[in-house]
Amino acid sequence: MDPTAEHRYVITLSCPDTTGIVARIAGFLADAGGWIVEAGYHSDPATGWFFTRQVVRAESLPFGAEELRERFATVAADLGGDTTWTVTDTREPKRVVMLVSEEAHCMHDILGRVAAGELPVRLACVIGNHDRLGPIVRAHGVPFHHVPFPPPGGDPDARAAAKAEAFGQVRHLVEEHDPHAVVLARFMQILPPDLCRDWAGRAINIHHSFLPSFVGARPYHQAYARGVKLIGATCHYVTPDLDAGPIIEQDVIRVDHGDTAADMVRRGRDIERLVLARGLRWHLEDRVLVHGNKTVVFP
Amino acid sequence: MDPTAEHRYVITLSCPDTTGIVARIAGFLADAGGWIVEAGYHSDPATGWFFTRQVVRAESLPFGAEELRERFATVAADLGGDTTWTVTDTREPKRVVMLVSEEAHCMHDILGRVAAGELPVRLACVIGNHDRLGPIVRAHGVPFHHVPFPPPGGDPDARAAAKAEAFGQVRHLVEEHDPHAVVLARFMQILPPDLCRDWAGRAINIHHSFLPSFVGARPYHQAYARGVKLIGATCHYVTPDLDAGPIIEQDVIRVDHGDTAADMVRRGRDIERLVLARGLRWHLEDRVLVHGNKTVVFP
Amino acid sequence: MDPTAEHRYVITLSCPDTTGIVARIAGFLADAGGWIVEAGYHSDPATGWFFTRQVVRAESLPFGAEELRERFATVAADLGGDTTWTVTDTREPKRVVMLVSEEAHCMHDILGRVAAGELPVRLACVIGNHDRLGPIVRAHGVPFHHVPFPPPGGDPDARAAAKAEAFGQVRHLVEEHDPHAVVLARFMQILPPDLCRDWAGRAINIHHSFLPSFVGARPYHQAYARGVKLIGATCHYVTPDLDAGPIIEQDVIRVDHGDTAADMVRRGRDIERLVLARGLRWHLEDRVLVHGNKTVVFP
Amino acid sequence: MDPTAEHRYVITLSCPDTTGIVARIAGFLADAGGWIVEAGYHSDPATGWFFTRQVVRAESLPFGAEELRERFATVAADLGGDTTWTVTDTREPKRVVMLVSEEAHCMHDILGRVAAGELPVRLACVIGNHDRLGPIVRAHGVPFHHVPFPPPGGDPDARAAAKAEAFGQVRHLVEEHDPHAVVLARFMQILPPDLCRDWAGRAINIHHSFLPSFVGARPYHQAYARGVKLIGATCHYVTPDLDAGPIIEQDVIRVDHGDTAADMVRRGRDIERLVLARGLRWHLEDRVLVHGNKTVVFP
Repeated sequence: MDPTAEHRYVITLSCPDTTGIVARIAGFLADAGGWIVEAGYHSDPATGWFFTRQVVRAESLPFGAEELRERFATVAADLGGDTTWTVTDTREPKRVVMLVSEEAHCMHDILGRVAAGELPVRLACVIGNHDRLGPIVRAHGVPFHHVPFPPPGGDPDARAAAKAEAFGQVRHLVEEHDPHAVVLARFMQILPPDLCRDWAGRAINIHHSFLPSFVGARPYHQAYARGVKLIGATCHYVTPDLDAGPIIEQDVIRVDHGDTAADMVRRGRDIERLVLARGLRWHLEDRVLVHGNKTVVFP
Repeated sequence: MDPTAEHRYVITLSCPDTTGIVARIAGFLADAGGWIVEAGYHSDPATGWFFTRQVVRAESLPFGAEELRERFATVAADLGGDTTWTVTDTREPKRVVMLVSEEAHCMHDILGRVAAGELPVRLACVIGNHDRLGPIVRAHGVPFHHVPFPPPGGDPDARAAAKAEAFGQVRHLVEEHDPHAVVLARFMQILPPDLCRDWAGRAINIHHSFLPSFVGARPYHQAYARGVKLIGATCHYVTPDLDAGPIIEQDVIRVDHGDTAADMVRRGRDIERLVLARGLRWHLEDRVLVHGNKTVVFP
Repeated sequence: MDPTAEHRYVITLSCPDTTGIVARIAGFLADAGGWIVEAGYHSDPATGWFFTRQVVRAESLPFGAEELRERFATVAADLGGDTTWTVTDTREPKRVVMLVSEEAHCMHDILGRVAAGELPVRLACVIGNHDRLGPIVRAHGVPFHHVPFPPPGGDPDARAAAKAEAFGQVRHLVEEHDPHAVVLARFMQILPPDLCRDWAGRAINIHHSFLPSFVGARPYHQAYARGVKLIGATCHYVTPDLDAGPIIEQDVIRVDHGDTAADMVRRGRDIERLVLARGLRWHLEDRVLVHGNKTVVFP
Repeated sequence: MDPTAEHRYVITLSCPDTTGIVARIAGFLADAGGWIVEAGYHSDPATGWFFTRQVVRAESLPFGAEELRERFATVAADLGGDTTWTVTDTREPKRVVMLVSEEAHCMHDILGRVAAGELPVRLACVIGNHDRLGPIVRAHGVPFHHVPFPPPGGDPDARAAAKAEAFGQVRHLVEEHDPHAVVLARFMQILPPDLCRDWAGRAINIHHSFLPSFVGARPYHQAYARGVKLIGATCHYVTPDLDAGPIIEQDVIRVDHGDTAADMVRRGRDIERLVLARGLRWHLEDRVLVHGNKTVVFP
């Protein structure tokens, strides 16, 4: 958290589109003296749905976050039964839990960003299925928990049981913090459906391809085999359908015939880091509104 | 013009920032039944100025463009004496005049875009200081006027007089159409101050560098000499200060040590075309609001 | 063709990799006094194959293109039976035939580039399945042939016969020119297998997605439905497998939630134009070597 | 260092261009049985100079790095008195010293890359003019030295003396390691001319603008004032002329009217990190050859 940052409230709202929504919200804020410093609107002709994100200077309002929520609930109620909305206070830092494996570049990147004061976040803990990364994480003042997962092979039933046991531990460690985001920073384990469901809209994955190309395992090797000229990464919300959740952000980097699959693995990391960091920031700043399997992102 | 495009009104407004502006505008539109399909807002903390662009479905309003202008004038008047605003009707195509020289890639690109129905524009005419391009322009159904300019060298006074004479002709040919945009599509002649002033906010230039680097002549050769790794182009409004007007759009392309200055000239054309086409489209769609020497672009 | 361009010979070669290939080729050229101005090498560890492209100043050699071909054949023969190679002369302009339909933005772009002297090519003719584009093409001094294709619907057998008949005409018109490239500039008709085979390595398509995502029809609509944050285009050699041939070039452009499928269609054109123009230039300058289903591109 | 990476020798050479250079080098390598796995050539028509970088499998040669150097010296001697060349062994890790200040994002990024095994480097030490970063650096197993610099203001002579004293300490700490690279990772102190001279070709700076725009202090604030639509970063060799040394790498990121100068500072960090990491990697892999004030980069 940047202590010099201005104190603000962030309002998001989605509702069926109709005439007068902006007037209703803006009128409410104006009546209360609210000074809007950022405002994004989106009207989606395909679904007939309306989305907005508004940022208001806290000191321009004569009441606090709690009362803003109460009052705004009345506005939202006028806009139809399907309306969903949030009001957050930039003084309340968001809690993040990170799940990692051995490929630690995304974790290092996020630790570095938090250390540099770039991400508006409190890192509650890091959970790893190897213990090698503990010392660095702890040097950043962040708790590290080692939850071993069963290696590939062996008796399938025993492995499934061990995996379920491990995910039980992960669930426990995560939910203790009631985090705003659970970041799968190249975690390399597929979340079981119950966690996908319970963490819906909060579990964020970075997939190392430009989805929907190259779903599943070893996407860089798939990309190499196809001979593509750009490789990419995708940050998306986790859903039970593998690599098919709502996309938050994507980007690509150029490769050429001289890049082996191993080169692509290395070069792709630059895009994974960037795409995950952007997606996570937008999520934490309430810039991402999910509707069906798509996102509205107010950048 | 896309005849299937929906009929819309586009409102832009700039005024000193204060509480309640959005409520005032949105309330006005909601009262009239106006259905907003696009809305952009910008509040600039550095200048304390507010900017908005709103797009309304024409058929959602019970009156036409003329009456919308009259009524909106009342709203704008409430927002302070320095307020500037426009209301345009997407059924009234914008008129464009293009000035060209020998480097015709930007002109070919715009002609192609108009032929493909991509730019919401009526090409009023093309004015060239060489006559070679006449046949192609006319094949596109666009009038072409040849206005010769004096070549470099010779008696300076005679040359200045000939140039002033040529610019007089250009002014006459341009102003006959009262165009929404005068596009200097690599025109290679510096507009005299009186034309800069009279066409302020309408004269659009494409400069073949990433400004403010490499102002003036032969920017690719300057870029080559400095050994930069990216070259760029800048679309900006013309002002009497050479290459220093408000920037509408910029982009870059990667080069390397194997690119000679001539290669940069060739490769840079791809960026010039793209940047000019984007900047011109945004200008014609009233997406660009100028404030001081900077632009707000609602994309 | 740029008449001021230097006279050069371009050599390409692919062969099984082993020690001494570069020495063999460079030794041959050095013995003849050949001045190498560009040289690209690629050694592919996955296939054990070697690729090179060399550009030599014509006047540095004491013999012409024909004798260079004869002498180089001896060098190539030393490098194994599977070796393939070409020697071309930059003074012999390449012939291109373009196939178009109604979406003419790529065609306009290529016509503009040829008019601006940017592409090293002689446009032999344009073949369209609608006649609307004839006048503009002919204004560029390029012959235009209208070959009507049967519209969708109707009796399938009659339609198949009419289509075969139309493709027969296209084949005849194309092969008359023995072109170095047959460009499907958004032709929107799937080439029959016999043409794919006979024009292998010369038929170049632009597909309006970032392959392998969104193969087949209406890729922008597929992209819109998936909610991707970038859209792309792919220039590839045509093979009987739809949209699965060797990729020459790809690029992408950012979109957001505000872009409808129609906006993506419009915005994607900028990438289609650019990617096709780059791919075609590289093909014509002998920069693209195909191996299996992948390309080596010496840029 | 990746212990699974193949053992290789990297040869670089610059010399006056003439016929037969490639044949001479390739012939030498072929005679020794050398298997070339990467080869880059550049012939610069403007300066008449030739550049090459070759990578050879160590086990393909019947001798080691020392003898390769001795033998290659004979080849180089044949190519003229101005020839410069290097032969390095990928088994000998390069030593890097990093200088940092308070803006630590580039340092965090490089520490993370080294921890993730991405950069072929041994971090000899980090020198900071504040001591806050010590614990994190040491948690990475890297020595950290705190060298305080005088704050702005105060008596100019006393300040100059304190600064000279501090730079003396920095020189001592750096030269102890005879590093291949001295990285100014947002060090924010201008190197004195004697260090620029003594570390020529090894001192690498990241400047937070797209040079040559916005030389000197507070480049993001300069960019904000000019209203540019892209901001950038430049990795370059340090020379006594401020921000004017040979450019290794540059890149840009899009900004818009909604970005304040502070936003640009934050967003620019992503480009600074990336550009410095790329430039440093290329330097350490002997991919960068300097000639005059420009670089040849074999990527």
